[in-house]
Amino acid sequence: MLKVGIIGASGYTGVELARILSTHPEVELTVATSRQYAGKPLSEVFPNLRKRVDLICENLGTEELIERADFFFAAVPHKTAMDIVPPLLSAGKKVVDLSADFRIRDANVYEQWYQPHSSAELISEAVYGLPELYRDQVRKTRLVANPGCYPTSVILGLAPLLREKMIDPTTLIIDSKSGTSGAGRSAGVGTLFCEVADGFRAYKVGGSHRHIPEIEQELSALAGEKVTVSFTPHLLPISRGILSTMYGSMSSTVSEQEIQQLYEKTYEEEPFVRVCPPGTFPATQYVRGSNCCDIGIKVDSRTGRIIVLAAIDNIAKGASGQAVQNMNLMNGFAETSALLGAPFFP
Amino acid sequence: MLKVGIIGASGYTGVELARILSTHPEVELTVATSRQYAGKPLSEVFPNLRKRVDLICENLGTEELIERADFFFAAVPHKTAMDIVPPLLSAGKKVVDLSADFRIRDANVYEQWYQPHSSAELISEAVYGLPELYRDQVRKTRLVANPGCYPTSVILGLAPLLREKMIDPTTLIIDSKSGTSGAGRSAGVGTLFCEVADGFRAYKVGGSHRHIPEIEQELSALAGEKVTVSFTPHLLPISRGILSTMYGSMSSTVSEQEIQQLYEKTYEEEPFVRVCPPGTFPATQYVRGSNCCDIGIKVDSRTGRIIVLAAIDNIAKGASGQAVQNMNLMNGFAETSALLGAPFFP
Amino acid sequence: MLKVGIIGASGYTGVELARILSTHPEVELTVATSRQYAGKPLSEVFPNLRKRVDLICENLGTEELIERADFFFAAVPHKTAMDIVPPLLSAGKKVVDLSADFRIRDANVYEQWYQPHSSAELISEAVYGLPELYRDQVRKTRLVANPGCYPTSVILGLAPLLREKMIDPTTLIIDSKSGTSGAGRSAGVGTLFCEVADGFRAYKVGGSHRHIPEIEQELSALAGEKVTVSFTPHLLPISRGILSTMYGSMSSTVSEQEIQQLYEKTYEEEPFVRVCPPGTFPATQYVRGSNCCDIGIKVDSRTGRIIVLAAIDNIAKGASGQAVQNMNLMNGFAETSALLGAPFFP
Amino acid sequence: MLKVGIIGASGYTGVELARILSTHPEVELTVATSRQYAGKPLSEVFPNLRKRVDLICENLGTEELIERADFFFAAVPHKTAMDIVPPLLSAGKKVVDLSADFRIRDANVYEQWYQPHSSAELISEAVYGLPELYRDQVRKTRLVANPGCYPTSVILGLAPLLREKMIDPTTLIIDSKSGTSGAGRSAGVGTLFCEVADGFRAYKVGGSHRHIPEIEQELSALAGEKVTVSFTPHLLPISRGILSTMYGSMSSTVSEQEIQQLYEKTYEEEPFVRVCPPGTFPATQYVRGSNCCDIGIKVDSRTGRIIVLAAIDNIAKGASGQAVQNMNLMNGFAETSALLGAPFFP
Repeated sequence: MLKVGIIGASGYTGVELARILSTHPEVELTVATSRQYAGKPLSEVFPNLRKRVDLICENLGTEELIERADFFFAAVPHKTAMDIVPPLLSAGKKVVDLSADFRIRDANVYEQWYQPHSSAELISEAVYGLPELYRDQVRKTRLVANPGCYPTSVILGLAPLLREKMIDPTTLIIDSKSGTSGAGRSAGVGTLFCEVADGFRAYKVGGSHRHIPEIEQELSALAGEKVTVSFTPHLLPISRGILSTMYGSMSSTVSEQEIQQLYEKTYEEEPFVRVCPPGTFPATQYVRGSNCCDIGIKVDSRTGRIIVLAAIDNIAKGASGQAVQNMNLMNGFAETSALLGAPFFP
Repeated sequence: MLKVGIIGASGYTGVELARILSTHPEVELTVATSRQYAGKPLSEVFPNLRKRVDLICENLGTEELIERADFFFAAVPHKTAMDIVPPLLSAGKKVVDLSADFRIRDANVYEQWYQPHSSAELISEAVYGLPELYRDQVRKTRLVANPGCYPTSVILGLAPLLREKMIDPTTLIIDSKSGTSGAGRSAGVGTLFCEVADGFRAYKVGGSHRHIPEIEQELSALAGEKVTVSFTPHLLPISRGILSTMYGSMSSTVSEQEIQQLYEKTYEEEPFVRVCPPGTFPATQYVRGSNCCDIGIKVDSRTGRIIVLAAIDNIAKGASGQAVQNMNLMNGFAETSALLGAPFFP
Repeated sequence: MLKVGIIGASGYTGVELARILSTHPEVELTVATSRQYAGKPLSEVFPNLRKRVDLICENLGTEELIERADFFFAAVPHKTAMDIVPPLLSAGKKVVDLSADFRIRDANVYEQWYQPHSSAELISEAVYGLPELYRDQVRKTRLVANPGCYPTSVILGLAPLLREKMIDPTTLIIDSKSGTSGAGRSAGVGTLFCEVADGFRAYKVGGSHRHIPEIEQELSALAGEKVTVSFTPHLLPISRGILSTMYGSMSSTVSEQEIQQLYEKTYEEEPFVRVCPPGTFPATQYVRGSNCCDIGIKVDSRTGRIIVLAAIDNIAKGASGQAVQNMNLMNGFAETSALLGAPFFP
Repeated sequence: MLKVGIIGASGYTGVELARILSTHPEVELTVATSRQYAGKPLSEVFPNLRKRVDLICENLGTEELIERADFFFAAVPHKTAMDIVPPLLSAGKKVVDLSADFRIRDANVYEQWYQPHSSAELISEAVYGLPELYRDQVRKTRLVANPGCYPTSVILGLAPLLREKMIDPTTLIIDSKSGTSGAGRSAGVGTLFCEVADGFRAYKVGGSHRHIPEIEQELSALAGEKVTVSFTPHLLPISRGILSTMYGSMSSTVSEQEIQQLYEKTYEEEPFVRVCPPGTFPATQYVRGSNCCDIGIKVDSRTGRIIVLAAIDNIAKGASGQAVQNMNLMNGFAETSALLGAPFFP
């Protein structure tokens, strides 16, 4: 059994990691840290874990962590992660970092959107943990930078078209909508029930969301040229789920049927990517609680644009589910272990 | 007191009309028709109206209707409306038609998106009832084609930019999200609570929603050239509210500040259009239950695009509220009569 | 025009007061205080008020308040209220206090459930502002203690039965469910969207909620004997609304029909209390956004118990709406002024 | 591998059965029937099942069913079930019936609440499938009557107190609240999103819900005397979840601590019943998507009553999860097989 630790277990990605790992046949969750809840059972912080996860939250230093587990999920905010990860690696541990700290390959770009980077030497070693694109590298690395939630939906949605140069990368507009768990579990007026329920809004309008450099890095790699996108995130009155609606001008005369076939072929063997049948489209409620990414495509012949829709559960495939998928690969487990449960509906 | 009738009172636009009219100082609601609920008090169908609206639903022919009121709201589906409206006009009544039947000025376009039109001769006479654009014509007409919900948000949102040619009309992408009341009150699996709640999806993807010709007609008139748009509607797990996120390339070198001022000046005197302060954006929860349309703008300097966001309550400014606004104008009442209530939040 | 001030305008009762007063024909809102948001337009804190309420939040002392208005709503927490109210009264102002500070007639009881009372001498003068029970006293007082939200639903629901001794007051069980706005607008993990949405729970189980002494005080007065109740509040995943389900053993052999008639007669002339037709029951969605209280009754002949259901909007009839109703009475305005709007549905 | 069929797969219990069974290591789902969707992939009806369940809905007669599986879940409405089950049993199959048809041991009582029973001879053989009470019988039977959703929460919640005679069974009041999936997937105005969202109501008030005889049968067996209860169901604006709040007078002088210990001891070895720590209470969001039943207790010393709260997921432990638990027992599988996933939160 692999001994696994969660650093920062009291957020929504932490509880989702614990939930998924509780049924993993090859993993033992041996430590969960939380400064705020140190000394409390994790199942008191998250009563859904009662009788399923039997751990006390602890506030531990690196030395102690190293003794307690061999694999770590860093579920702490960016900036904190870049300080916690290096000593774990030095001690021979493997890490999936759920923060943004090791996602951006160009440290200058990172520092432009975030803040100074104190562990830039590790960036080149980190693998961007989107298994559908980087499966082989993930298998071999000791450090995975787990992708952001929005980027996961966008990159999986656009990859086939960009690779095949069927879409003009200068025309990409991405209108994304996320459930509120994406805002985290910190108390704040803006995410109170009464502020969010029965409502809908955009935020970070006009190209200021920090997932943009991550999206552009990966889309550029796929397109083979520098890609700049318009990206508008919105806040949905649901807990879990992201739907990204993506628009671009077609750059070839390929038919909708051919594009459909391209997607089906691309993702045929992928256990977690599901291409919707022609004429049908994804919905967040059909991926809820699962590691699935559903994708649907449609050509708008009136405007010569193609619309791609991609749905994920933002704390599963968009965070903790994908993190476990990466852990599976990094340790030679079956990639789908603990992740094959179908989405919950209704 | 103006005697007013609602034809088709058992839908969500019907109950909203009755609610608004119940506090109108110059109107008496004298008749409400419903085939399905004939003989039942309207307040039994909609218990929110108890002690506020005292009417029995009736199933009446045109002859009887004519005797009972002098002004009518036709809140029936398209196709039905085009048969009901002509005899009312012939009898000297005024009508606001909430269906799509008289919105499209080109009967061929109408027939291409809907079905054959049996009263095409009335189309030229009908005024498209968006008072912010056609106030004077509304005052003088006997037939108003009340705008669709999506078009109201889109047209008010884009009008200043198109008029001033600050946006390239060939690049318009409109990503709209609507509350579920827009789907009406007919029983169907797709709009059951468990199918919609805690979820989000697109529908009519790829340029097939019937509001497209209406949007394009009005945007073309504003732009002075034929406009074709990409339009994707989505279904929100809320009852009331539309947010349209609109993208287009800037066609001039105007600054964000100048655009902000353009919007503020354009809508300064409008009682129902509210321009958000710089850096803030509309949310459906801030227009809920009101006749307001909130608009926010942002320039994305990275991509040279401008993003316009517009929010309305789809059954108020997007239907019944706007219908009453038109009724007010058609009868010389204060335009804001019965409509000045602030949105309710939370 | 009566000059009116809201002390503590940045909570949910504050914004609801401002919303209601914005359409009141005899009132001018002249001052709104908020320590947290001092200097900001109230419509920036609550964008629903844009173009409807034009006030800057201020942080003012009593002296300044006294110069700015003649009537005050104290929408601050208990304990704070008891310090703010006395100087206002001394300066000749009238006050509706929305806190609990002057609701409990026995200062000992108050101190047992809350904390020491620093203005106990005013308690005897304060009128419990449930107009359906104390209308005449409200008209004459300068200080109204505005009822709590749960108590409003419970007292209006049980009053006829207790007065007529048709129910055994030793058997009363009250199972109440409230929307989340009742928890206020302070940031806290427990009322985050993701903690409340798609869920349901009880709180303050076992007789510990502070509305209990208020409920028992009024039910005892109605029954003519000391009443002790079981009361369990629950948290609903909605913003507005309370439904109280109340159970008691029948103490007479009266029929359901007679009880129905008793309720209909009791509340016949009340503009805001609506008795549901036989066999139908209230729902929070039918009182949303209004000052209505809907009541339904049913005899369970299998058990000899009667069930009473009462629904209100907790921040309207349960707080700000009732406060305005009291203000209307205290100033000789029409009791229904600014309050006659029908509930919003859907 | 056990070949399993779902009769009536197009409802919410059907999709939940398919979801759970898709990860069951000893089961192969070989047939799913649906008259309405015959010929369609089940994953087209329920897209959450894509790539997880590969079955076409069929409309089959009993003969064909018998050839296709060895174990059946009957997920059809009552009345239909009593006709489908007997031939399956005659053919040597085992059945879990999710309808009410075999739950009531007294056919007269059944017929009083439902309709004439055409297979009354099977009633005595059927085992009421609440494993926590009837585990041994379930193991041996070929026909399980799967309990109703409300009864599951009520019986598990009250069993310890009734068995130990710590509560007066003549005083039981049960106030239950259910998510909307309990109303099924048939199209109807009453369960449309806009009718349910942001609202709350009671239904079947006054002792008329058909789960009452089932509740009373089991509570009577536990108490050793005939029990009659007051039971009021309510409709929550959530998809999944039941919370039952139960009240009764204490019939002994036992302390809260002793009752807590009684519950903890009673359910200590149960994998799916979780007793909340003292002072904490269940919430539907902590059992969502799982087979768990969470129970909390509190003594109200002011009134001498005890309050028991029990939460389940109505389509999991309240239907399909419990059905699989019964299947596991009937076939000698581990009782928890495919059911150990922790609830998903948020």
